[in-house]
Amino acid sequence: MSHSKAVILLSGGLDSATTLASAVADGMQCYTMSFDYGQRHRAELDAAVLLSKSLGALEHRVMQIDLGKLGGSALTDRNIPVPVKPSEGIPVTYVPARNTVFLSFALAWAEILHAHAIYIGVNAVDYSGYPDCRPGFIQAFETMANLATKAGVEGNRLEVRTPLIQLSKAEIIQKGAALGVDYASTVSCYQADAHGRACGQCDSCVLRKEGFVNAGLPDPTRYF
Amino acid sequence: MSHSKAVILLSGGLDSATTLASAVADGMQCYTMSFDYGQRHRAELDAAVLLSKSLGALEHRVMQIDLGKLGGSALTDRNIPVPVKPSEGIPVTYVPARNTVFLSFALAWAEILHAHAIYIGVNAVDYSGYPDCRPGFIQAFETMANLATKAGVEGNRLEVRTPLIQLSKAEIIQKGAALGVDYASTVSCYQADAHGRACGQCDSCVLRKEGFVNAGLPDPTRYF
Repeated sequence: MSHSKAVILLSGGLDSATTLASAVADGMQCYTMSFDYGQRHRAELDAAVLLSKSLGALEHRVMQIDLGKLGGSALTDRNIPVPVKPSEGIPVTYVPARNTVFLSFALAWAEILHAHAIYIGVNAVDYSGYPDCRPGFIQAFETMANLATKAGVEGNRLEVRTPLIQLSKAEIIQKGAALGVDYASTVSCYQADAHGRACGQCDSCVLRKEGFVNAGLPDPTRYF
Repeated sequence: MSHSKAVILLSGGLDSATTLASAVADGMQCYTMSFDYGQRHRAELDAAVLLSKSLGALEHRVMQIDLGKLGGSALTDRNIPVPVKPSEGIPVTYVPARNTVFLSFALAWAEILHAHAIYIGVNAVDYSGYPDCRPGFIQAFETMANLATKAGVEGNRLEVRTPLIQLSKAEIIQKGAALGVDYASTVSCYQADAHGRACGQCDSCVLRKEGFVNAGLPDPTRYF
């Protein structure tokens, strides 16, 4: 079993919790990173703390960044309403360059830790609407990352791993359930309340609900 | 004259001031972005405010990020001393993934503004020690950026422009002087005091001093 270090981007949602469980299953020493970026709900940050502990991460960091100050997304700008059903094209919940910013911070920590991998839970469902969830984007980020860092210059290649990228929401849930993820601890809703309870109506809730149905597993989500 | 929008990364130092002046000379509508990232000196942020006004930027934003919390650099970690002469290899003043993080925030703002370019003042002198100042890195970031964003998906290509990349420090100073940059307002020192006065001894001061000598121009830097 390898004990290489990895930085895991952990939002506290279903996908990133499954990604962390995958990294643990790969035998990585896991360092989890979350972001307080002006998102409407803070419950997912509480979830990230719990998940880091329960899944055995060695360290968890929350980075404070003010992407919300730049505006442009329903997730960080309270003047833009969160839609109540899945939208076509790129949704208003898209946060400009979010994954690029998140991966850049993960890269900084990976360089300091001499980590060999960054894990990010992008997947085929997000891919339909968010440009920064596509495989081509991830590959381009990895190429850039290896030109950006001391490690890359010295020939120690960093990998950006996306264990969920080809999976449907149902397949993600089946994978995580097999790896022991407690999905009751995860928060996916775009407008979760302070207790981590979900609206059941936003894009993210609808996808998650359908995922449990299609996976043939009980949905442990708490709705308000 | 074109009036495309551009986001300019502006530290308040000599290089970024010259980069802003170059963008203005290119006819761009300039939006300047600085970072409060735990660097030892705050004087350069004051300089960035002054330079944005004097060079005609339309808007200036300071992003608060806590890269310093991750450690690993003499610029943000007070346990690592700032060296007193130019070092070999990658210097301890290198901040892990700094330019990647800065460019990612610039990308987020560029996407919101529908900007056509990001300007960054990397140059041939930095290139010798910092991996994220090399032309190959910049090209890889541009490729990644165009896969990351709505604009890229819709075919509106974003450029990452580096007007200083092939210039020596002396050539940068000559270029900026010709464009009217007041270098007395810029702060380059790694350990400048609260009034923006420089130590005259760190890597950055030594390179700057030599630059004015080689440019054949008087050095307006205030030393303490």
